[in-house]
Amino acid sequence: MTSIMEANVVTPSGDGSNTTAPTHFIETGHETYAYRRFGRGAAPPLIFLQHFTGTLDNWDPAVTDALARGRQVILFESAGVGRSTGEVPDTITGMAAHLLAFADTLGLTEVDLLGFSLGGMVAQQVALDRPSLVRKMLLVGTAPEGGEDIMHLEKPELRRILQDPNLQGLQVLVKLFFASSDSSQGAGQAFAARLAARTGEWEPISGPKVAQAQLAAFRAWEHVDGERFEKLRRIRQPTLVVNGIFDNMIPVRNSYALGEHLPKAMLLTYPDAGHGSLFQFHDSFVRQASLFLDSEVL
Amino acid sequence: MTSIMEANVVTPSGDGSNTTAPTHFIETGHETYAYRRFGRGAAPPLIFLQHFTGTLDNWDPAVTDALARGRQVILFESAGVGRSTGEVPDTITGMAAHLLAFADTLGLTEVDLLGFSLGGMVAQQVALDRPSLVRKMLLVGTAPEGGEDIMHLEKPELRRILQDPNLQGLQVLVKLFFASSDSSQGAGQAFAARLAARTGEWEPISGPKVAQAQLAAFRAWEHVDGERFEKLRRIRQPTLVVNGIFDNMIPVRNSYALGEHLPKAMLLTYPDAGHGSLFQFHDSFVRQASLFLDSEVL
Repeated sequence: MTSIMEANVVTPSGDGSNTTAPTHFIETGHETYAYRRFGRGAAPPLIFLQHFTGTLDNWDPAVTDALARGRQVILFESAGVGRSTGEVPDTITGMAAHLLAFADTLGLTEVDLLGFSLGGMVAQQVALDRPSLVRKMLLVGTAPEGGEDIMHLEKPELRRILQDPNLQGLQVLVKLFFASSDSSQGAGQAFAARLAARTGEWEPISGPKVAQAQLAAFRAWEHVDGERFEKLRRIRQPTLVVNGIFDNMIPVRNSYALGEHLPKAMLLTYPDAGHGSLFQFHDSFVRQASLFLDSEVL
Repeated sequence: MTSIMEANVVTPSGDGSNTTAPTHFIETGHETYAYRRFGRGAAPPLIFLQHFTGTLDNWDPAVTDALARGRQVILFESAGVGRSTGEVPDTITGMAAHLLAFADTLGLTEVDLLGFSLGGMVAQQVALDRPSLVRKMLLVGTAPEGGEDIMHLEKPELRRILQDPNLQGLQVLVKLFFASSDSSQGAGQAFAARLAARTGEWEPISGPKVAQAQLAAFRAWEHVDGERFEKLRRIRQPTLVVNGIFDNMIPVRNSYALGEHLPKAMLLTYPDAGHGSLFQFHDSFVRQASLFLDSEVL
């Protein structure tokens, strides 16, 4: 493993871009986690929690860098993904525990969370398991526990993309995360170009083992014991819920459920956009996210 | 009729508040419409289209005055309401025709529309009937043609409020427009106090005849010939759709339909809020509305 082991106390890099930010590593008692940390600001750090099979390299600089202008951002790689050690848990609770171990080792006592897709589920679980750690949340393209039609890759419209031999690498994400219109696909190509521009070292791409465990976590997340959405009432953090109306990986009705059942959630949906609405409408998203994170009220 | 008849060319009042703004009148070939006009700015004027039985006096200064800081606002009173002459149409199309006659007589060629509830339906119809007039739209607490559960005052939860002998005047609106929580009801009382603070002359309150015709228009609006929501595809204006998740006059799923079928609509929902979310979250709403109206993109 190529790694730059660090002491517990980390000086944030002055470098403010995920195009160039070095990957850091931190050892807890159990695991070594890869992460990137950049940006400056007095606000609590904003921790980014990644999507299905995504690594640190899948965070769009148009979003991370712009948000890092007003605060520190920390991109977290959970256990078993990229160069983080350990096994990918097959439950969201297990993933939340890794985030908590990471935050504790970094000495963080109050953070904001930006959870995208799978990461949004982890963020909700962290807010339930350690409410004192979380000040505010951004939940993008995600679903509550008990949500519907979460990441069913066997659906024809997704399988067609995943099994297309002509689609390689980032081009798969362009098809999966963006709507079918020319405008959305164009935004997808711009997104892919921004990711590809990274000049720092890359994380290894996730393999079938990562996917399998994360899919098991999705399946478990669709089930709920007791009253559906009841847990959401216990999440008191101000939350901004965001999605594209054409998300076919985690349909927008899951975002409606979050908006209706989280006591302090504002919902924002984008037209002509799919799962990756935050990357397509990155200017608007960053403006909305900054407004939300910097304001006392909604 | 107490009226201050004006010439076609109107100098906007320097007065920037609906608490004090005088009511103006303008004669078209057919009717005389009451309106208020204040604020300054280079942007197209923003025309406010009012809710069921509402008059010019029902516009919250917290919204109108703040928006008038960046643009002219024009509060329009449609035919048969307040001191506007004529009959209240029993169709949305009929109401849209009055707005067009008013705008033409004022010499307006490009406007933004803020339609609340009934007014949001009129705004959609205007965008269909005269697309060239409308630059952008704000649709708040409203529904598309073919929407569901639109203003069914016979529903127990609404009838209970409307028939409560202890509720008078603005207190009825506080119950109807705000959620049942203490925080929302408190916001409702602040809203009522802002309306009651008006020092200019008041419009006459709407009677049963106004209500009857407007309810007929709601019933007709629930029906649609042909493909449901198909007309929304033809509305190309950038649109900001807003509602509270606890709206029991025009439930939020109607706003979801607008967000999903209008090609260029961003949807925003507020927690702990009902039909009058724009008055409860007036600071956030004004910020969002200004951002939307002033931006080139969403």
